[in-house]
Amino acid sequence: MKEYLDFALEIAAYAKKEMLEHFDSSFTYNYKKDSTVVTEVDQSINHYLLERVHEKYPDHSVLGEEESDSNQKSQVWVCDPVDGTGVYADAIPVSVFSLAYVVDGIPQVGVVMDPFLDKCYTAIRGEGAFCNGERIHVNEKHLGDLGYRINFEMWNDAKFDTLMMVHDLLREARISSIGSVARSCMAIASGYFSCDLFPGVEHANCDMAASALIVEEAGGRVTDFYGNTQRYDGSLQGAIVTNGVSHDEILQKIKKGY
Amino acid sequence: MKEYLDFALEIAAYAKKEMLEHFDSSFTYNYKKDSTVVTEVDQSINHYLLERVHEKYPDHSVLGEEESDSNQKSQVWVCDPVDGTGVYADAIPVSVFSLAYVVDGIPQVGVVMDPFLDKCYTAIRGEGAFCNGERIHVNEKHLGDLGYRINFEMWNDAKFDTLMMVHDLLREARISSIGSVARSCMAIASGYFSCDLFPGVEHANCDMAASALIVEEAGGRVTDFYGNTQRYDGSLQGAIVTNGVSHDEILQKIKKGY
Repeated sequence: MKEYLDFALEIAAYAKKEMLEHFDSSFTYNYKKDSTVVTEVDQSINHYLLERVHEKYPDHSVLGEEESDSNQKSQVWVCDPVDGTGVYADAIPVSVFSLAYVVDGIPQVGVVMDPFLDKCYTAIRGEGAFCNGERIHVNEKHLGDLGYRINFEMWNDAKFDTLMMVHDLLREARISSIGSVARSCMAIASGYFSCDLFPGVEHANCDMAASALIVEEAGGRVTDFYGNTQRYDGSLQGAIVTNGVSHDEILQKIKKGY
Repeated sequence: MKEYLDFALEIAAYAKKEMLEHFDSSFTYNYKKDSTVVTEVDQSINHYLLERVHEKYPDHSVLGEEESDSNQKSQVWVCDPVDGTGVYADAIPVSVFSLAYVVDGIPQVGVVMDPFLDKCYTAIRGEGAFCNGERIHVNEKHLGDLGYRINFEMWNDAKFDTLMMVHDLLREARISSIGSVARSCMAIASGYFSCDLFPGVEHANCDMAASALIVEEAGGRVTDFYGNTQRYDGSLQGAIVTNGVSHDEILQKIKKGY
């Protein structure tokens, strides 16, 4: 797995350079069919990954937020080149690069790169989670404790109504929506945030595969909105990401939202 | 007014140094009666301002988020030492320093410092808004246009239910809650974001005084939740901050939230 981690770090280094170079500058950006923004930076990073995987691991396939191949292999590189493109395009420095090596639906290696704070989060399954080489851990806060933060994502046609969910949780937590689920998950893995509610369904694995592994290796818990574990090489049923402490309690409380 | 701007920039330089030095490090933080977090950084910046104003402008008073004097003068320095302390404590690099020179309730000089991107936003009433010396302008997007972003703040005992307001606006905008209203207002003044819904009532002028002036000088519009202009040396009735284009339309649409 160490070889795959090194490969992922190589792609992350390219992503960091691209993201910093084009941040808060005039670049071409377009809107996808679902009205979300895509920039040249997303496309460039995604394309670089595709080329490098085909060159080095012709037996693997690539599932990217912007570009995938049509291979149906058991070993998949799942990538969100810029998680939080919307806030990236708005010059808010919280977006990250995310890449996971997934085997039969289970993330084995994960890398998330925060170019703005120069922090690289990594995990190999079973070997713990790290930030710039230092072990990281989730916090031990319960829902309702001071400083318990829930971050959430939302969009118009989302299957799950996370806005109503957090409305019900407002008495027991600080709420934010910083604009990148992977950055929020890294804040959970580092002991800052305590929970993230992510309503993603189709292609949402691109956003979550690396984060799910890193949070779990930092001691947290990740399930879908029904409390089940799920594969990370296909569509999701939302994701609840927590420090592990109040996971079941939150599962119960959000049921009204769907 | 130039003298007051220079004075405000001097305080902003101190704030920038303090905020960067203690970011993402172990520092003492406490919770206020309303359960919001306050750090040594907030207190240190606020106290520095108080000392400097009393030394240089004994006829002025200070209204700070963490510390004020009991003077009741017409010339008031209104300051939020760290706007977005919650996300600052969680190592998300979006919080800013905010300071306004307010005369008879009207902001005349405003400075907002983003230490993470090293951007200093300034305005003198009637003379335009600037970021690091360059003129800035709001965008011209209408509610419903691609990329129209509404940022909002919320907390449990807020008078106005901004969560329900944005729930109703989700079809027509991208929603975020990055954790600092002043940072969000600077994104509006710079043409990135298009609207902010801020439910602050008591002491909320500390968060808004500088931002209101800078957004207005960048071509935007700021009112309370009823569409009225308001004084910035006392409590507010919420704040709607926009690029000016769909302000009245949003006013109508959010009425359900109160």
